[in-house]
Amino acid sequence: MSEFHWISWLQPTLAAHEQRMRLTSGVTPWPSADHGRLITAPGDDTAVMHVGHGDLLLAADMLMDGVHFDLGTTPPHLVGRKALAVNLSDLAAMAGAPESATVCLALPKAGGEELAKALYSGLLPLAEEYGLTIAGGDTNAWDGPLVISVAITGRAHPRGSVRRSGAVAGDWICVTGTLGGSILGHHLSFTPRLREAWQLHRDYGLHAMLDLSDGLAGDLRHILRASGVGARLDAAALPISQAARRLAAGQPDPVDAARQHALNDGEDFELCFTLPEAAAQRLLAAQPLPGVPISKIGEVTAAKGLVWQGGSAVAAGGWQHMF
Amino acid sequence: MSEFHWISWLQPTLAAHEQRMRLTSGVTPWPSADHGRLITAPGDDTAVMHVGHGDLLLAADMLMDGVHFDLGTTPPHLVGRKALAVNLSDLAAMAGAPESATVCLALPKAGGEELAKALYSGLLPLAEEYGLTIAGGDTNAWDGPLVISVAITGRAHPRGSVRRSGAVAGDWICVTGTLGGSILGHHLSFTPRLREAWQLHRDYGLHAMLDLSDGLAGDLRHILRASGVGARLDAAALPISQAARRLAAGQPDPVDAARQHALNDGEDFELCFTLPEAAAQRLLAAQPLPGVPISKIGEVTAAKGLVWQGGSAVAAGGWQHMF
Repeated sequence: MSEFHWISWLQPTLAAHEQRMRLTSGVTPWPSADHGRLITAPGDDTAVMHVGHGDLLLAADMLMDGVHFDLGTTPPHLVGRKALAVNLSDLAAMAGAPESATVCLALPKAGGEELAKALYSGLLPLAEEYGLTIAGGDTNAWDGPLVISVAITGRAHPRGSVRRSGAVAGDWICVTGTLGGSILGHHLSFTPRLREAWQLHRDYGLHAMLDLSDGLAGDLRHILRASGVGARLDAAALPISQAARRLAAGQPDPVDAARQHALNDGEDFELCFTLPEAAAQRLLAAQPLPGVPISKIGEVTAAKGLVWQGGSAVAAGGWQHMF
Repeated sequence: MSEFHWISWLQPTLAAHEQRMRLTSGVTPWPSADHGRLITAPGDDTAVMHVGHGDLLLAADMLMDGVHFDLGTTPPHLVGRKALAVNLSDLAAMAGAPESATVCLALPKAGGEELAKALYSGLLPLAEEYGLTIAGGDTNAWDGPLVISVAITGRAHPRGSVRRSGAVAGDWICVTGTLGGSILGHHLSFTPRLREAWQLHRDYGLHAMLDLSDGLAGDLRHILRASGVGARLDAAALPISQAARRLAAGQPDPVDAARQHALNDGEDFELCFTLPEAAAQRLLAAQPLPGVPISKIGEVTAAKGLVWQGGSAVAAGGWQHMF
């Protein structure tokens, strides 16, 4: 089945689970009145739990050898770095601040110790760049391939978490950095946009945001669906990476091919966000992020659907995990 | 290498990591002054993070098919239940209250959807018994065996978390329930002792605690090492399970064999704790846990080492994961 099919089962299942718990509060000896409660629907970049004093952000990702990386061609410290970086990117997508993480490993028996140390050698420096404490986890060995699962906690931004559901008609849609061609290396070396997201939300008040992990065309639809809106995209405004241009160079129509890479390639891990037009104009004029361009790529519309400026539909795209 | 060898590398590595972060606080745009900081050494049952208002407990475990369970012989809903239960047991070991959890799955491609739903059908009811919200996670498919990784957050007990390092000479050592023979089924059906731990700490003020996952003889040594003390055990007082007696029935010396099972079998997931003698006497007289006997099994000594009452050393034992 497809990932979206699975999520269409999981979301109502978890919502019913949460509802049953509201009804059964008081069954535990610890006080349930100030017990943590989920305040985002499952499916946002992180969960947001109300825990009495400030909100707890919570996310987890699992990466498997042969699926999300290839240990045959990738130095293991970059695998460790990526396993944490994808979680940091999820926190960035809420404009959250990282606090702590756990690391679970299923190591191949042969060479497990060296591999584990190499994973940590990539993971720990990245954690320290963002003030994140690696607090524990679980280390195992088996006859299977490497699996690394990182769970992360963080705190919400003082202005609140930026969810997928906040986009309103008239908002401008912007992205950080350049898009496409991540497979050439960016997916292992990307900078989780934590500082950028924190600063953007603080200074410009974002309405909706996510990190681009499955490709702009697919990911933007998550915002549109969650917000009950549509969008009009400007094809000429898509910020196309050098890597996307390299991949497109041999194609019959390299300009269009590069645009397709920018639109559909996964693992950009850039921010896609919406904000009111006036704030967006200030932001685009200021370009406040050193070395990280911000581009307006379109506008949110009351009419649903994702279309180009001329009115034609943007083809469905984006990576879908199948299982 | 052995698990203990690995932890002997990981603990100082993570302590140095934490130390570097204390030195570099202020490098992030979010306020680092009230940033979460680790207040347990890595190696306790859960991490304890100071997060401004109350402590955050954090733990994670990963279970792999063929290592921690066998999908060939185990109904998947019991696998899902166990994956959460082992994490709840870690929280119980701190006398903590559960709040939220994430679930990461690596599913075999064939039959992945049915398997995933069955895992959740065992996991969700257990979560609801304890007021725990399943807040999110990550679902993947691959050609490998099932891997399930659960991370959990909780809140500390109002009397503080019960760590491994709090045992003092003169404390009595107690356990809940009966021990040994978990392999016959208990490891899939056990009750995480969350309610029991909360109540015991509230009413009797525990000094040190852990949950028995690798066998009493090995696990108790963790408390002794962390607390810098020793212990004298009463062989006749070990509460031996019916399952341990069944396993021992065919042996030349079934009484001794059953005791060895109680002492060394893993996955009891009962509580082992120490508390002052006066409180222990009150506790043992009251037996306040319905259906769950509490047994005194020994006393904490200033002299290091783990010995029987006669003075002979308790043989090294307990399960060690090798990788």
